[in-house]
Amino acid sequence: MKNDATIRIDIVKAPSSKIKSVDFENLTFGNTFTDHMMVCDYENGEWQQPKIRPYGPIELEPSAKVFHYGQAVFEGMKAFRDNDDTIWMFRPEENFNRINKSSKRLAIPEFPKEYFFKSLEALLKLDKDWIKKGFGNSLYIRPFVIATEPGVSASPGKNYKFMIICSPAQSYYTGEVRVKFSEEFSRAADGGVGFAKAAGNYGAQFYPTNLAKEEGFQQIIWTDANSHEFLEEAGTMNIFFRVNDKLLTAPISDRILDGITRKSLIAMADVYDIPVEVRKISVKEIVEAAKDGSLKEIFGAGTAAVINPINGFGYKGEKYELPKLTESYASFLKDKLMKIQYNLAEDPFGWRYEVKE
Amino acid sequence: MKNDATIRIDIVKAPSSKIKSVDFENLTFGNTFTDHMMVCDYENGEWQQPKIRPYGPIELEPSAKVFHYGQAVFEGMKAFRDNDDTIWMFRPEENFNRINKSSKRLAIPEFPKEYFFKSLEALLKLDKDWIKKGFGNSLYIRPFVIATEPGVSASPGKNYKFMIICSPAQSYYTGEVRVKFSEEFSRAADGGVGFAKAAGNYGAQFYPTNLAKEEGFQQIIWTDANSHEFLEEAGTMNIFFRVNDKLLTAPISDRILDGITRKSLIAMADVYDIPVEVRKISVKEIVEAAKDGSLKEIFGAGTAAVINPINGFGYKGEKYELPKLTESYASFLKDKLMKIQYNLAEDPFGWRYEVKE
Ligand SMILES: Cc1ncc(COP(=O)(O)O)c(C=O)c1O
Ligand SMILES: Cc1ncc(COP(=O)(O)O)c(C=O)c1O
Repeated sequence: MKNDATIRIDIVKAPSSKIKSVDFENLTFGNTFTDHMMVCDYENGEWQQPKIRPYGPIELEPSAKVFHYGQAVFEGMKAFRDNDDTIWMFRPEENFNRINKSSKRLAIPEFPKEYFFKSLEALLKLDKDWIKKGFGNSLYIRPFVIATEPGVSASPGKNYKFMIICSPAQSYYTGEVRVKFSEEFSRAADGGVGFAKAAGNYGAQFYPTNLAKEEGFQQIIWTDANSHEFLEEAGTMNIFFRVNDKLLTAPISDRILDGITRKSLIAMADVYDIPVEVRKISVKEIVEAAKDGSLKEIFGAGTAAVINPINGFGYKGEKYELPKLTESYASFLKDKLMKIQYNLAEDPFGWRYEVKE
Repeated sequence: MKNDATIRIDIVKAPSSKIKSVDFENLTFGNTFTDHMMVCDYENGEWQQPKIRPYGPIELEPSAKVFHYGQAVFEGMKAFRDNDDTIWMFRPEENFNRINKSSKRLAIPEFPKEYFFKSLEALLKLDKDWIKKGFGNSLYIRPFVIATEPGVSASPGKNYKFMIICSPAQSYYTGEVRVKFSEEFSRAADGGVGFAKAAGNYGAQFYPTNLAKEEGFQQIIWTDANSHEFLEEAGTMNIFFRVNDKLLTAPISDRILDGITRKSLIAMADVYDIPVEVRKISVKEIVEAAKDGSLKEIFGAGTAAVINPINGFGYKGEKYELPKLTESYASFLKDKLMKIQYNLAEDPFGWRYEVKE
């Protein structure tokens, strides 16, 4: 790693922009990519010069370790355009720290902070026209690292690619969401990689989720692998339960991702005098609260959806519906959080990060 | 899937062979690849025509699901050349069944049997000069499947590539192997993907294994994630313990790979009147057996090494050495199994599979 002053991003611009061909009113989440991407190779024991290149395919040996051993981690973050055309990010340092935490657990070399921020900002400036004004519009940013070294022996690679790709996004609306509390399948083991955004954690959820879909659920809320008695998190969201006026959410652990939305909501709830208990949450208490009417809300918290209200859940063959509230914590907190993200409100926490021209 | 009679493999031969540049006396496991590879794409809801192409890089979108969600599975199998130049495989149907079992758990469409065997045999015939005579020489065969569909939303891909690549191998000798019994980290959760050859299972082991290496161990024997009291398997091998004259090995479960070497050894032990107990094995009993001298051997069983004797283990800061036996089960069974593989002995089990000209 070179020191800060000497970092130059090697930029090759796309000869023309695809932006005209994109219908920004009808975006499917994660399907459209901007004109450029960042690529940085790890070779000879160090991260080489970050490059920005026209967005396009990459070439890898069929024996590249990522294909065989899942040595891959990622992040998800967003950029927003405010009414004065300033571009903001939300707590990007948290994402930076987390990708290195994930990398460490996957035996991937950590990425230098200066490389991350300088290349990310250079990329955002190049593709800034892809960040549209309007509450709910954003640019979804996907940093990821993959092991590129060829070789089918199960050991860490010596070569890696750190990349950043960007996808314009609208408000994430998935329709009504009903979740299944997992009774049999698990997402993560104690002492495993559940706390990391390791690629393999996600593919492992698809099959159980497909089965849940056949039963009429859209997602799964994972329970602990040992007893299936405690509720942990969803596939890409941490989970909050509102019982009467109190919010409950599981503590983070080596099985649960330390979500940035989750911790922001906990901090905001404190400011708005919403009581939050961070503790183990049993399936039993939630089922009982659903039965006696004290369970008012369940919602997921994550970068893509910000907050995703959940309409009902299923457990052991029973289905439970949640009340339709006019004043939900979910919509209150989502609005407050998004207003900070879009520079429509004060930011007492110092969470906004300006991408300077 | 077309029916058997209509399957044609689309073959493009390499213009020239690299074989002359390969030093077959000094192969590093998994680093050299043959002249050809098999590629079959899953598109529009079905597996397309299998193709054989010159071995070379593949192109993927940076948003391909395999990079982000670890939707990838693989297999490991071998081909052998006997003294009459006949090419044999070992129980390939087991590998075929297992890759589909793995695929199913990773929400990857299963691969048709005829495609697998026809394309594999066509590939082996084309690259047969890479399969060298001599006890211990083999061709390591790596079928794998990756999700190729672009898109950074966490859901199963619609497009996949099934590939087979091949790497010539010599006897697998790793030097002395000492293992650490895992006390803290885990490989798999109940209800997870441990029984599948899912890519993510392997990358997740690299970091704990690196830590074990710093303590002087080469590998880890994983224990159950709940209690760390029971010994399960190693990173790429099932594990056998010999206590006095009895072999012990853990039962397969949704955390443990159903190894083909393991089950072949269990069947052979029966023929040779070696008592085998398939049951939960506690760390405690193995530590006690090591202390009182009744622990005679530990060995790993897997396709790459066949049988890998283990010289010692570490647990809770203590190191235990195993006796050096002149007549070990490990070397007896390895020799018997390899003689079947190389057509140097009768095959009462019907395990050999001839690759016909
Ligand atoms: C497993 C998992 N849990 C929770 C989250 C939410 O985290 P964040 O709020 O940082 O996006 C994500 C998505 O990033 C995730 O993948
Ligand atoms: C986790 C794991 N266990 C055990 C084995 C041994 O299985 P087999 O004997 O079928 O090669 C392997 C390798 O394939 C493996 O990856």
